[in-house]
Amino acid sequence: MSTLPNAPYHHGNLRQALLEAALRLLEQQGEAGLGLRDLARAVGVSPAAPYRHFDSRAALLEALAVTGFQRFTARMQAVMASAPDDPLAAMGKTYVVFALQNPNLFRLMFSPQLKKDARPGLRMAADAAFDTLRQAVGGTALDGRIRALAAWAKVHGLAVLLLDGQIAIRAGEDSEALVAEIIGSL
Amino acid sequence: MSTLPNAPYHHGNLRQALLEAALRLLEQQGEAGLGLRDLARAVGVSPAAPYRHFDSRAALLEALAVTGFQRFTARMQAVMASAPDDPLAAMGKTYVVFALQNPNLFRLMFSPQLKKDARPGLRMAADAAFDTLRQAVGGTALDGRIRALAAWAKVHGLAVLLLDGQIAIRAGEDSEALVAEIIGSL
Repeated sequence: MSTLPNAPYHHGNLRQALLEAALRLLEQQGEAGLGLRDLARAVGVSPAAPYRHFDSRAALLEALAVTGFQRFTARMQAVMASAPDDPLAAMGKTYVVFALQNPNLFRLMFSPQLKKDARPGLRMAADAAFDTLRQAVGGTALDGRIRALAAWAKVHGLAVLLLDGQIAIRAGEDSEALVAEIIGSL
Repeated sequence: MSTLPNAPYHHGNLRQALLEAALRLLEQQGEAGLGLRDLARAVGVSPAAPYRHFDSRAALLEALAVTGFQRFTARMQAVMASAPDDPLAAMGKTYVVFALQNPNLFRLMFSPQLKKDARPGLRMAADAAFDTLRQAVGGTALDGRIRALAAWAKVHGLAVLLLDGQIAIRAGEDSEALVAEIIGSL
């Protein structure tokens, strides 16, 4: 069986190709600029093709947020495994770097518009990310949750303040070094 | 000199009346629902009257954010003075409560759209809030700033996660008690 250059996408691959293209469009143009028609054009398929995988724009955004949480969790788990001495500091830095590298995806993952309680798949993906942090924090069932929420708040706040341009970086200051210092101080 | 019920506003008072009405409209309808005409109607003045105090909608939003920072800083300073034993915990709780009580004002104060570097008055008001925190944190010039940024990130993250509905409050859980526990753990 030969694969021709213009062979139609296999269904499984088309979904993946659509998601990858959508992640690129999301960062390039922002969430507002991301529609199923733009996506079809970017991937080179018919305007109707994306609808075979995503019922609506909302379904596409949900799938992107789920993908974001899956990649984020995988990265967090890798960092946790590779920094056994101080996993929380390494994970904190990874959290902020992920946000700065994928600002629009990060905003989408934590968007109040994409209500997680009405989307079981998204809820599960977000819970898996929290569970990774919960595991790194340790502690008892009771205080572990509180400590994980506190650790999450710290790095989420730093990420949001940096993304929103609220922390005044001084002239000549290295913003990455500043992040490391703040994380170290958290 | 008598004050008649329908006497026109004194200029100084009109600005204040416009700001108070705008703060109410901001929380009731969100930033998108806040225009200078709606404001004139709410205060009972002519549509042109607000323009004597605010050149544009953007100028009104900036004035609201400045007012927000001034009230926020005053509240922080009062809390700091009244809790000398653990000012940071008391200020942290006040930060989150302020955000939950005034969600739209809080979002406006930290909106990336309202760039502080182009607005000296807003920059100054925001810096005064940070300086209060900086004072509470203590430390040297060098590490004090980093520690203040870290403390800010913690409570800002908690406020944003709660406002955006990202922290799953369990059935029967008291959200205020949860905030106090997380702040205590920070």
